[in-house]
Amino acid sequence: MEYEQIAVEAKDGIMTVRLDRPDRMNAYTFRMREEISDALDRADADDDVRVVVFTGSGRAFCAGADLEQGAATFDPAGHSVVTGEPEPAAEDFRDDGGKLVMRLFRSTKPLIAAVNGPAVGVGATMTLPMDIRIASEDARFGFVFARRGITPDGCSTWFLPKVVGIDRALEWCFTGRVFGAAEAHEARLVREVVPADELLDRAYAVARSIAERTPAVAVAVTRALLWGMQAEPDPWTAHRLESRALHWAGGSADAREGVVAFLEKRSPNFGLRVSSDLPEYLRSWPTE
Amino acid sequence: MEYEQIAVEAKDGIMTVRLDRPDRMNAYTFRMREEISDALDRADADDDVRVVVFTGSGRAFCAGADLEQGAATFDPAGHSVVTGEPEPAAEDFRDDGGKLVMRLFRSTKPLIAAVNGPAVGVGATMTLPMDIRIASEDARFGFVFARRGITPDGCSTWFLPKVVGIDRALEWCFTGRVFGAAEAHEARLVREVVPADELLDRAYAVARSIAERTPAVAVAVTRALLWGMQAEPDPWTAHRLESRALHWAGGSADAREGVVAFLEKRSPNFGLRVSSDLPEYLRSWPTE
Amino acid sequence: MEYEQIAVEAKDGIMTVRLDRPDRMNAYTFRMREEISDALDRADADDDVRVVVFTGSGRAFCAGADLEQGAATFDPAGHSVVTGEPEPAAEDFRDDGGKLVMRLFRSTKPLIAAVNGPAVGVGATMTLPMDIRIASEDARFGFVFARRGITPDGCSTWFLPKVVGIDRALEWCFTGRVFGAAEAHEARLVREVVPADELLDRAYAVARSIAERTPAVAVAVTRALLWGMQAEPDPWTAHRLESRALHWAGGSADAREGVVAFLEKRSPNFGLRVSSDLPEYLRSWPTE
Repeated sequence: MEYEQIAVEAKDGIMTVRLDRPDRMNAYTFRMREEISDALDRADADDDVRVVVFTGSGRAFCAGADLEQGAATFDPAGHSVVTGEPEPAAEDFRDDGGKLVMRLFRSTKPLIAAVNGPAVGVGATMTLPMDIRIASEDARFGFVFARRGITPDGCSTWFLPKVVGIDRALEWCFTGRVFGAAEAHEARLVREVVPADELLDRAYAVARSIAERTPAVAVAVTRALLWGMQAEPDPWTAHRLESRALHWAGGSADAREGVVAFLEKRSPNFGLRVSSDLPEYLRSWPTE
Repeated sequence: MEYEQIAVEAKDGIMTVRLDRPDRMNAYTFRMREEISDALDRADADDDVRVVVFTGSGRAFCAGADLEQGAATFDPAGHSVVTGEPEPAAEDFRDDGGKLVMRLFRSTKPLIAAVNGPAVGVGATMTLPMDIRIASEDARFGFVFARRGITPDGCSTWFLPKVVGIDRALEWCFTGRVFGAAEAHEARLVREVVPADELLDRAYAVARSIAERTPAVAVAVTRALLWGMQAEPDPWTAHRLESRALHWAGGSADAREGVVAFLEKRSPNFGLRVSSDLPEYLRSWPTE
Repeated sequence: MEYEQIAVEAKDGIMTVRLDRPDRMNAYTFRMREEISDALDRADADDDVRVVVFTGSGRAFCAGADLEQGAATFDPAGHSVVTGEPEPAAEDFRDDGGKLVMRLFRSTKPLIAAVNGPAVGVGATMTLPMDIRIASEDARFGFVFARRGITPDGCSTWFLPKVVGIDRALEWCFTGRVFGAAEAHEARLVREVVPADELLDRAYAVARSIAERTPAVAVAVTRALLWGMQAEPDPWTAHRLESRALHWAGGSADAREGVVAFLEKRSPNFGLRVSSDLPEYLRSWPTE
């Protein structure tokens, strides 16, 4: 796939996905979602990629859905207009932002959002299934759906309260107001705020702290367990699923290397690969 | 219904419900619950009401269950004594505070608690299904159930950890101690603390920030989605429910107006009404 | 059971369980888990024990799994090697740390962790089902599993996000880094940090604040409700379960005493006993 709306670069174990429509403040389109999904497929398949960092070109992260279709923008018929596909029945309709979020959710690589400017609407909700959010001082956030007359997208009614609490999520979505990096930090939407010119360096430093000390497959399984357990109602189920993962992990070559390296006080050399060595149950994780 | 224990006023899109037994520190009774439920029914039916603000008359918010029945106060037979209705079987018994909380939970209008003084027992738990809690410097809170020999009421074992975390909820309920506005704020039980004479002004300002910029129906659906998703175990279900809401909302007149007004840089005039235009699936939300 | 790896003392209503292998930094073993479980059985059966405090001997709280088996430490066959029992089938394998955590989870007495030094791996995850965590300035924490090539244990993928949020849990588990008491406090993993020589005094003061003012049975039921509701998907179920508890509690002798003592402005004398007076549904709580 040739990318028109994102720019992708991989170096030193880190893939950077840059939303790249700076003249439109990186506004979101169906095409952008397809390109991001394709980049994530590449990241999953490439054992040299350990972490994916998302950021935006120019002064915005993502200004939300592109409104160039005007009044018809959010009409369910909109997708048909753009793609020529038949309009889905009501029960088959799927929010496009939600499709993106579910794809991000099942990534096998950790995802870091480096929010460089306004992140509004789907531009905000797409960061929620990412694991770590870092903001520049120029970042702004808005869950503006109600101001446009619509309801929240991107599975954000599930994700947002898990990050900032139900009361904060309600107020942000009721008012639709746009707020700055300081409030995002105080509410724990982002883990830290850094000067604009240090944003990517900081995101890469966090990415390296993951890539340099821990093995790719254990991290992929850990990611699936932690996010997956948000969807499991009870600790007894959690105990069974963790036990299944540990039964696999405990006997793996990476576990032997991890323990021996620790005892020998040296850096470990982990050998398992996400492309070939994921345990079966992780490969059967739901895709939608 | 004639109100004896609450005072209700509606103005400028905001209904104020004042718990109104100041000589009893607004202690809670079965009658008070029925009156609050009635006021919420009116708020749901009145399209001029956009937000409901709760506060207390005199120096308390609500001192908890009225203890004038003494040792029999919490006896399941108590309701029968007061109402003359037959005593329910154990499996049919329903906590009265929980009935109030479930009614607040399914409000179609945002709810704001303006906590002006002590909020203890059911006086504290009734604020948890409200969306935004603001405290005066005189507010105090206590989940005092264990000190009275009973277990928590008002669905608080479900709501409280969602607001303040499981560890804080445990400690407050184990000790039953009463604490001030500063601790409530630090633990995120309330979003802000203001001087006593600014409390209602501040609550009304937050209410207006909701009412002035966002449409009533999208807000009602957003409220149901955010709270409802706290009861949904997994993001895939969330994706389906959000998609259903967006399929409805995206094609609505409010969405067209919201986008066009934004593009024309003017204030939107939203036309949909909660009384007549709620989508079907919201009307089938469980009532108990 | 004779204790070799823990030291247990009960005084003034508080049982102290001290992990007691100071020459091995209190490293965790199968034997230690069995001894802790036995101590919890004694605490449950002894009405003179109101709260259990956990701490470590020497300079560590618990350094994690004992690695003396080297590369085979986490191999599922490990338990068989130590115990002589047959190796479990993959689907029957249960993480030993998870077994400990599930036992702590269903304690009828509140649990307080007084973390006096490093708490790493299972040494960290075993504190998560405890109700209140207090750290000395010397405490350090690490969810180091990935660094050893394995996945998280002790049901921590379920518990940890409930305490510190999903994003913090992901970062700690991805990097496996060890961090100090200040970061643990900022992230709300611990409720407070005190000088090393004040740690136990502070833990006992919190324990007394529970034991002195609230009755044992209501506290046991409250604990089961609050933790159990973390496993219940919806508030309607919560309302039913709370109602069942209140139907029992409201008619109990403790409720009569609690209300009367309050009205008479005296300290209550609660009489119900955990050993004999727990309501039936609590006794049927799942054990694994």
